[in-house]
Amino acid sequence: MRILGLDPGLRRTGWGVIESVRGRLRPVACGTVASADGAPLAERLVALHDGLSAVIAEYGPQTAAVEETFVNRNPTSTLRLGTARGVALLVPALAGLPVAEYGANHIKKAVVGAGHAGKEQVQAMVLRLLPGLGAVGSDAADALAVAICHAHHCETQAAVAAGQRADLSAMAAGMAVRRRSSR
Amino acid sequence: MRILGLDPGLRRTGWGVIESVRGRLRPVACGTVASADGAPLAERLVALHDGLSAVIAEYGPQTAAVEETFVNRNPTSTLRLGTARGVALLVPALAGLPVAEYGANHIKKAVVGAGHAGKEQVQAMVLRLLPGLGAVGSDAADALAVAICHAHHCETQAAVAAGQRADLSAMAAGMAVRRRSSR
Repeated sequence: MRILGLDPGLRRTGWGVIESVRGRLRPVACGTVASADGAPLAERLVALHDGLSAVIAEYGPQTAAVEETFVNRNPTSTLRLGTARGVALLVPALAGLPVAEYGANHIKKAVVGAGHAGKEQVQAMVLRLLPGLGAVGSDAADALAVAICHAHHCETQAAVAAGQRADLSAMAAGMAVRRRSSR
Repeated sequence: MRILGLDPGLRRTGWGVIESVRGRLRPVACGTVASADGAPLAERLVALHDGLSAVIAEYGPQTAAVEETFVNRNPTSTLRLGTARGVALLVPALAGLPVAEYGANHIKKAVVGAGHAGKEQVQAMVLRLLPGLGAVGSDAADALAVAICHAHHCETQAAVAAGQRADLSAMAAGMAVRRRSSR
């Protein structure tokens, strides 16, 4: 399964695509989509939209996950960050991808094992978990961390579903045995 | 000129289209685009995107204006409101429309004449300024107020440009007269 992770920001939105095959993770591509600082807000959002649409068209992920952005103390900055986050959620959803959201602490816990890990720890673990990745910028690394977190979540869900199927088969087998023995 | 006004909100985004012909305003259509309260955020943003895209396709505005949303004190609500605002700015820009933004006080001043007018005063003035409008909901009325504000702004800009053109013609005529008289 190909997973797109996004770390939204108005100036720079980090993105990372990874592949998860039977629990093994592999980096596919990563980068940032930038928007010009002085441009009108609507134009900047179009730049993010076009950049993210191009990433999805090129790498064809099947599912996406977006970081629940850090809430700034300044309401005006928070509102502007929200506009970028809206585009980051919208673009994969428009492409028909299911879009998950994870909080920063959840992502850190999934990648490093501790909810309050520092940025450097997260980046170091991303490099270790995705061998062959090479040097990446901090926004792209954060986006890859979101994708890794989503991969773990999908695996756990698949394992639970498989377990439930196994339980159901065992139950059905048990019922069949009981039915036969009650004849 | 057809103008689209938008009052963005995640639950309900108000929209209003008006026509401005030589300073005369006429209502074209208005309404709200809603998104389901309990649905995942990405789905709600797709609903706003699709609804606003349909409005633009149906009424063909040439320019758009979006209210600079009220900044809530709760950062999480502000961030969510920001996502809806991002979609409200993005959709007309993707359709190739120039997108203006106006603060709430600026809109009230343009419509009522006072920056701190109440919601009811704004709605009453919208009904007076757009004869034949009939009953409208409060979100649609707010969106029409944004469109009226933008119409006034465009007229003023056109008048200034016309004045500058007249000044330039007068200046050119004066230079021609001086040139003739200096022969």
